[in-house]
Amino acid sequence: MNKIPVGILGATGAVGQRFIQLLENHPWFEVAWIAASQKSAKLPYAEAAKWKMNTAIPARVAKMTVSAADPRSAPKLIFAALDAAIAQELEPRFAATGHAVITNSSAFRMQAEVPLVIPEVNGDHIALLEQQEWRKKRGGYIVTNPNCSAIGLVMALAPLARFKIEKVMVTTMQAISGAGYPGVPSWDILGNVVPYIAKEEEKMEAEAKKLLGSLKRSKIAPADFAISAQCNRVPVEDGHTESVSVKFGKKATADQLIRAFADFPNKIAGLNLPTAPRQPVFYDTAADRPQPRLDINRGGGMTASVGRMRPCNVLDWKFTVLSHNTIRGAAGAAILNAELLKVKGYLD
Amino acid sequence: MNKIPVGILGATGAVGQRFIQLLENHPWFEVAWIAASQKSAKLPYAEAAKWKMNTAIPARVAKMTVSAADPRSAPKLIFAALDAAIAQELEPRFAATGHAVITNSSAFRMQAEVPLVIPEVNGDHIALLEQQEWRKKRGGYIVTNPNCSAIGLVMALAPLARFKIEKVMVTTMQAISGAGYPGVPSWDILGNVVPYIAKEEEKMEAEAKKLLGSLKRSKIAPADFAISAQCNRVPVEDGHTESVSVKFGKKATADQLIRAFADFPNKIAGLNLPTAPRQPVFYDTAADRPQPRLDINRGGGMTASVGRMRPCNVLDWKFTVLSHNTIRGAAGAAILNAELLKVKGYLD
Amino acid sequence: MNKIPVGILGATGAVGQRFIQLLENHPWFEVAWIAASQKSAKLPYAEAAKWKMNTAIPARVAKMTVSAADPRSAPKLIFAALDAAIAQELEPRFAATGHAVITNSSAFRMQAEVPLVIPEVNGDHIALLEQQEWRKKRGGYIVTNPNCSAIGLVMALAPLARFKIEKVMVTTMQAISGAGYPGVPSWDILGNVVPYIAKEEEKMEAEAKKLLGSLKRSKIAPADFAISAQCNRVPVEDGHTESVSVKFGKKATADQLIRAFADFPNKIAGLNLPTAPRQPVFYDTAADRPQPRLDINRGGGMTASVGRMRPCNVLDWKFTVLSHNTIRGAAGAAILNAELLKVKGYLD
Amino acid sequence: MNKIPVGILGATGAVGQRFIQLLENHPWFEVAWIAASQKSAKLPYAEAAKWKMNTAIPARVAKMTVSAADPRSAPKLIFAALDAAIAQELEPRFAATGHAVITNSSAFRMQAEVPLVIPEVNGDHIALLEQQEWRKKRGGYIVTNPNCSAIGLVMALAPLARFKIEKVMVTTMQAISGAGYPGVPSWDILGNVVPYIAKEEEKMEAEAKKLLGSLKRSKIAPADFAISAQCNRVPVEDGHTESVSVKFGKKATADQLIRAFADFPNKIAGLNLPTAPRQPVFYDTAADRPQPRLDINRGGGMTASVGRMRPCNVLDWKFTVLSHNTIRGAAGAAILNAELLKVKGYLD
Repeated sequence: MNKIPVGILGATGAVGQRFIQLLENHPWFEVAWIAASQKSAKLPYAEAAKWKMNTAIPARVAKMTVSAADPRSAPKLIFAALDAAIAQELEPRFAATGHAVITNSSAFRMQAEVPLVIPEVNGDHIALLEQQEWRKKRGGYIVTNPNCSAIGLVMALAPLARFKIEKVMVTTMQAISGAGYPGVPSWDILGNVVPYIAKEEEKMEAEAKKLLGSLKRSKIAPADFAISAQCNRVPVEDGHTESVSVKFGKKATADQLIRAFADFPNKIAGLNLPTAPRQPVFYDTAADRPQPRLDINRGGGMTASVGRMRPCNVLDWKFTVLSHNTIRGAAGAAILNAELLKVKGYLD
Repeated sequence: MNKIPVGILGATGAVGQRFIQLLENHPWFEVAWIAASQKSAKLPYAEAAKWKMNTAIPARVAKMTVSAADPRSAPKLIFAALDAAIAQELEPRFAATGHAVITNSSAFRMQAEVPLVIPEVNGDHIALLEQQEWRKKRGGYIVTNPNCSAIGLVMALAPLARFKIEKVMVTTMQAISGAGYPGVPSWDILGNVVPYIAKEEEKMEAEAKKLLGSLKRSKIAPADFAISAQCNRVPVEDGHTESVSVKFGKKATADQLIRAFADFPNKIAGLNLPTAPRQPVFYDTAADRPQPRLDINRGGGMTASVGRMRPCNVLDWKFTVLSHNTIRGAAGAAILNAELLKVKGYLD
Repeated sequence: MNKIPVGILGATGAVGQRFIQLLENHPWFEVAWIAASQKSAKLPYAEAAKWKMNTAIPARVAKMTVSAADPRSAPKLIFAALDAAIAQELEPRFAATGHAVITNSSAFRMQAEVPLVIPEVNGDHIALLEQQEWRKKRGGYIVTNPNCSAIGLVMALAPLARFKIEKVMVTTMQAISGAGYPGVPSWDILGNVVPYIAKEEEKMEAEAKKLLGSLKRSKIAPADFAISAQCNRVPVEDGHTESVSVKFGKKATADQLIRAFADFPNKIAGLNLPTAPRQPVFYDTAADRPQPRLDINRGGGMTASVGRMRPCNVLDWKFTVLSHNTIRGAAGAAILNAELLKVKGYLD
Repeated sequence: MNKIPVGILGATGAVGQRFIQLLENHPWFEVAWIAASQKSAKLPYAEAAKWKMNTAIPARVAKMTVSAADPRSAPKLIFAALDAAIAQELEPRFAATGHAVITNSSAFRMQAEVPLVIPEVNGDHIALLEQQEWRKKRGGYIVTNPNCSAIGLVMALAPLARFKIEKVMVTTMQAISGAGYPGVPSWDILGNVVPYIAKEEEKMEAEAKKLLGSLKRSKIAPADFAISAQCNRVPVEDGHTESVSVKFGKKATADQLIRAFADFPNKIAGLNLPTAPRQPVFYDTAADRPQPRLDINRGGGMTASVGRMRPCNVLDWKFTVLSHNTIRGAAGAAILNAELLKVKGYLD
């Protein structure tokens, strides 16, 4: 099978590197074009990028020349790993010239006609892209995946939605890789907790409602629950841990809730997407799990791990959820989105 | 002035060492007797204890001989830093023989006639010790301080009580020193979060209500609010950080809440207790504070630092509180209790 | 092909768990028997072991019942992951009853008739086992792999031996996993360096000479060079980093030394042992490598990574070497030894 | 007594903040002028500096306005905490206009007529400043303190110089604060070792010889020994730990060496400099000390702690030395230099 050529915008940064790592040996996609900022352009990738993954830089990509971020030379399918400010400007330029922009950036996530997608949760939302002017005119579009802290929360909440979620409290303990490279100075985080991540609480709250909302007459009606997030940075390399408490409209037992994770009506079941984990949400019965060091790689980093379901004296139930912030929460999320778009015919 | 001789039960452990460190140069108290388990007895303290404080072992104490835990040789005033199971057995034995046992152990905290005290918050609760049979018979008694995670929370809540606390949600990120020595294996916590600390959530919830309760007819009527705690261990050396959310019966503005911390009707104001911080609760206006590495030593480790007061979509207001878990949350707490007992005449 | 059944002594500890992790899906060996201390015996493995690997516990092994450490029920091939004191007693008992004991313990490493082996370096030393009385009487024997800090050093030195090593200085920065579980208390190592690991310096110095020694008339003549080690513990999870300086008898250029790593006359080249890395020693030309977080998994954790070759003002050349301490330095080392024994006919 | 007004160049950076912290309540000096880069000028200090010390920002300094780095408005005595490139340009400008520039920068350390001083070790080298043209013309001069990694090594070596040092090997494990703020990205150092610090090895080697050299006919004759350094970054907040090995011209016993630390012919003994520690070098007899978390604050962070003296198979003796890199290794070093200059009349 001929693989589909893909381009990566922002290829030298931390998420860009994760894209390149995860796409090595991908059965459908092949990195064919990499772009980065002006100062990297024309350099071999191995020279332009300070490679920070814990596997070797793929030999083929290492030798590729970094392009300028010019849509004319790029393949149709683009993965974007750009800072929001740059994405704001570049992504529409690519979409307007017919590219399928699958982006991890926050720039367009909350825009009405842009799908914000976790395939297992709301894969049907991709239909929204038909509303985009870019699509109508030249076939291009933008599809986004959520913030790295929203994705674990929403994956844990989605299976519980049948009990009618009314209120959600979440406190996060987020890994430093979520801030990219160089990101968090070690001076700030070694042996420390920083109880603030700029704009993170707002993103979590807004994105969770859009993700759990429903597609009605080509629009997303956001889910109707109250949500409050408190975001903290902790000295962990990868993996966002979240203490969650939920109030439901329907009574549920711990057993029913735990079973709901296993029975999750996963919207991509049966599609055999290469990056989809066998089990999107795994419930661990051990008293002290999930833990980032032990559990982030479950399902190739694509499974959200949940544990400690127990009654809450203020809302109804509380639990802990963990997800890999740069795989399930960034590059892996975008790749899974692209796989869904492929099988749904949006890459033809 | 002749200093009051004090004994330390459990002197070789982590909290015992903190007692010895904090009592060096104390203006009122002087370590005169140190006791530990059988295997340490008769050894010089420097040999019995694996000293783990970041200041030098006080030379005078280093040479003292460790005693067996026998009340007959002990001074009246005893600071106890024992495991709960041992405290359960030893502390009554000391109280029954006329000793004032000021303990950090959890064994008797929730017992009806035992004061559980943070002097600034509920110093009046010490009157409860008059209900103790030990006191009636031989003059001895037990006074406790709260769990290291409850103390920061309650110090932040106490000034807000005037707005009628109805619901409290708290997620903790606790330092490893809270587990003593050897305590948490590095294998478990380096670059990790452990979302479980045995019995901690139950202690926080129960102790907070007793601490904020009121003394009525020689009994504590626990405060009447719902509280739910989620406790996590993080790779921090000292300092418990807590993300808190509160619902109030009376409307309040952020400004009123923040002013309440400064105006806290501190129950020991004016007593000039040596270990009391000038300001029990400090509100930091910076966007990203408090942080353990930067803020735990405020007020000699006795001040609780609060920050990030902002509206909560689920309850009313949310904020972060930080306190030093082995000073304000353990040895310093007990010493302050003893100072209060002294000025109130209970050590005469 | 029918796999060879293997037993694991000390299966519940940190190295025991690594054995089970690495043997899952091994093409030649299959875990058939697991033994641990009395208190674990008769429990299902999943219950007896507090599983601390970052991959899931293999389902088949999870259900196996832990046996007592009795040779009678054990398969011929035994991997041992025991504390030295217990190994001292148990390993001879297994060897004496005809078992092939492939051990990670230090108990017998320096014994004259016991091979201490890194296959690529001194695979021929296995012939020594023919000198063991156990082998002569009942066919059993003991084969050892080196200490986790010695193995990286020796893998880097072996290719340089052609330049006649005269003096070696090495300072280690060792990961906490080298001390097993619970091992190093977090109190001791978070944000800290501990400049002492009991007996480690002595082991490194003695083992390096035996490993680089030569087999002459059924005896090992230890290599003739001076060696001095300084061992430190650092807050790293996996991977021992070592700053090495060497004096050679023959003049060499940096280029010659670096080429020597690639040209290493690997004693198992061509044998296709499943656990052998394609490249035993990898030289990284980057200025700031090797680093544990980025490089320990090279070659499945079996490759030693070297970097920073530069002149030394006191000896001749200095460089940094890194190896995975619980794979190349423990369980993986033993498995590779067993693979070599298999192809050499010692498991028939 | 009227305090001497001092200015701080580079006041907002990490070392600048340490100067301000250490000078609060200094008996002789008082911060009177603070300067930083253009973008900070005219701001109140509290706003210009992102305060990262673990004590509160001194209230008086918080309100001071940051000046441009213009010598005309500055007091005579200047502490400089500048990047080398900026120091290269600014420091001569201040010296040329009559200022006493006491700097932590590396820019002029190795210049022939610039004293590189650790007062206890080579306080007499300050006489060198009389050779400076600036001094001759307008009274100004530059005095430097060594690199943070050189200072601990040299403090440990100086007492041993009587045994005629011939060869020195040192491997460092350096704290992240040595790189300033933001300095080392957490992505690079959490759970990691980086075996490279730009130019550090060269600085250590060159500075050690100048520091231990002797002043002859207004010139420094560098000490005559071979020295080789290997520098590593480790995830430690403060405190550089160094594994050292030394060859001596005169035979010495462990006892003699250890006694030499206590008997160190400290060149400022008796001068009662406020920042001078009672004991410049402390030898710890414990098997596993010194350790950064426990020992860096000895002598107010000005004492170098040594331990583990034992024979070396390659050179003669090996030991571990630890010093506080931003107090003894930076701001405290410069302040002590200024104190020496004061009592020697160079500030009159």
